[in-house]
Amino acid sequence: MRIDVLSLFPDMFAPMHQSIVGKAIEKGALDFSVTDFRQYTNNKHNNVDDYPFGGGAGMLLMAQPVFDAMDHIEQTAGDRGHVVLLDPAGRQFNHEVAQELADYDHLTFIAGHYEGYDERIRDLVDEELSLGDYVLTGGELGAMVMIDATVRFLPDVLGNQASAHTDSFEDGLLEYPQYTRPADFRGMKVPEVLMSGNHAKIAEWRLKESLRRTYLRRPDLLQGRQLTLQERDLLDDIKTEEEQ
Amino acid sequence: MRIDVLSLFPDMFAPMHQSIVGKAIEKGALDFSVTDFRQYTNNKHNNVDDYPFGGGAGMLLMAQPVFDAMDHIEQTAGDRGHVVLLDPAGRQFNHEVAQELADYDHLTFIAGHYEGYDERIRDLVDEELSLGDYVLTGGELGAMVMIDATVRFLPDVLGNQASAHTDSFEDGLLEYPQYTRPADFRGMKVPEVLMSGNHAKIAEWRLKESLRRTYLRRPDLLQGRQLTLQERDLLDDIKTEEEQ
Repeated sequence: MRIDVLSLFPDMFAPMHQSIVGKAIEKGALDFSVTDFRQYTNNKHNNVDDYPFGGGAGMLLMAQPVFDAMDHIEQTAGDRGHVVLLDPAGRQFNHEVAQELADYDHLTFIAGHYEGYDERIRDLVDEELSLGDYVLTGGELGAMVMIDATVRFLPDVLGNQASAHTDSFEDGLLEYPQYTRPADFRGMKVPEVLMSGNHAKIAEWRLKESLRRTYLRRPDLLQGRQLTLQERDLLDDIKTEEEQ
Repeated sequence: MRIDVLSLFPDMFAPMHQSIVGKAIEKGALDFSVTDFRQYTNNKHNNVDDYPFGGGAGMLLMAQPVFDAMDHIEQTAGDRGHVVLLDPAGRQFNHEVAQELADYDHLTFIAGHYEGYDERIRDLVDEELSLGDYVLTGGELGAMVMIDATVRFLPDVLGNQASAHTDSFEDGLLEYPQYTRPADFRGMKVPEVLMSGNHAKIAEWRLKESLRRTYLRRPDLLQGRQLTLQERDLLDDIKTEEEQ
C-alpha cells in the first residue's frame, strides 16, 4: 500500500515512523510519504492562506497549492489514490471504515491546518471523514489516527495475528478484563478462575465478562447482534446479578 | 493547566510541541510533561509487560510500573490530577468532553501501547475515554488528539478568539462553505453573493448553507435544537430545494 499525506507540517508525522506504522514501512508493506504543499505555492511569499470572500474571522487554505501538490503526487505515483479529507462534517471514522481504507492500493490524506479551507478543495476529494464531534487544530493528528487504525489491517503487519482478533470490536463485544503478574498487587487480587488452569471455565468467564462490560457500557453494541444460546444464558445471569 | 502523560514512547509526543499545544506551552498556559514509565519498572530487564493469567495471545501492561510512575507524578505535581485512560470501552470523546477536560487544573493521560493492560490499572483511573469505535496500536495518538482538542478551550490559547466560535459544533451546526482568492480557480467560481459586499445577504447565505450541510449530512445535530424563526424558514426552503 502507498499512503500520501498533504500537510504543511511534515515534521508532525514523526510518530508514524514508530510503532505499527513504522514496522509496516520497514517490512515494505507500506510506502509512506508526506508532501509539504507550501512548496507548491505560486506566490512570492509562499502564502498558503488568504482572507475569506464575504468577510469573517480567520484565514482559509487556498486551493492552488493543494491542487498543484496533488498534481505532483499523481505524476509521481501514477494516480491520486483514494483522496480523504478530514472534516468534522464527514462520515464518522470507525473500525469498518478502517477496514475499507485498508483495501485501497493508494490513499492520500489532505491534512489542513487552518480554520477552514477553500470549498473548491473538496473537488479533489473522494471521501470526507471525521474522527468525531470535536475540533482539532489541524488534520495531522486525525490523519495519523486513521493511518494507524488502517495499517493494522494490512496483511502481515500485526506481528501477532491472533491479537487482531481478540481486540475490542472485532467480534462486536468489548474486551474482557485481563490480569498479569503479580497475583496480588497492592492488595488487589487476580480472579481465582484465571489461575485455575480450567480452560473451559476461563473461556466462559471471559465471554461472560465481555458480555457484562458491553451490557453495562455499550448496550448499543448488543442490539442487532445474533446471540448464541450460551451468550443468551450468560446475559440473563448478568442482568440478574447487576439488578441486585 | 498541567498535563501529564504516562507513555512508553515519549518521542511520539513531538507533535505536541508544534501547533496549538506548542503555542500554549510557550505562552505559559500549559505545563506539559511526558513520563516514560519504563523507568519505573522494578524488574532487572525493565519489562513493562507480561503474559496474561488464564492464557491467551498477546502481552499485558503490568500494573507496577504504571502505579509507581503515577506516584512520582503525585510527588512532583502535588496531586495525580484527573486521570484519563484511553480505552475503546470508555465514554466517547467529543466537543463537550473536551470542554469539561479544559476545566481541570491538572490532567493525566495513561497511554498504553499494548494489546491490553492489567485490569488493576483501572483503579488509578477517574475516567475512561474512547476516541471512537476503532482500535489504535497505542494510546499515544489518542491522547494527543484529546490534548489538542482540549487545549483549544484554554483561555488565551487560540490567537483568534472569534474563530473558536465559528468552528463547527460550537453552535451545533456544520460550518458553511468558504472561499478565498482567486474568484475563478480552474473554472470553479466563488458564489456571487460572497463578493456582493451585502453583509446581511452574506450572513443569510452562510446561515442557510450551514443549515443545508447539517440537514444533508448530520440531521441528528438538528434534532432537539431550538430553531429561530429565520432558521425554520431557511430550513423549509432547503427541504423544498433538495427535494427537486
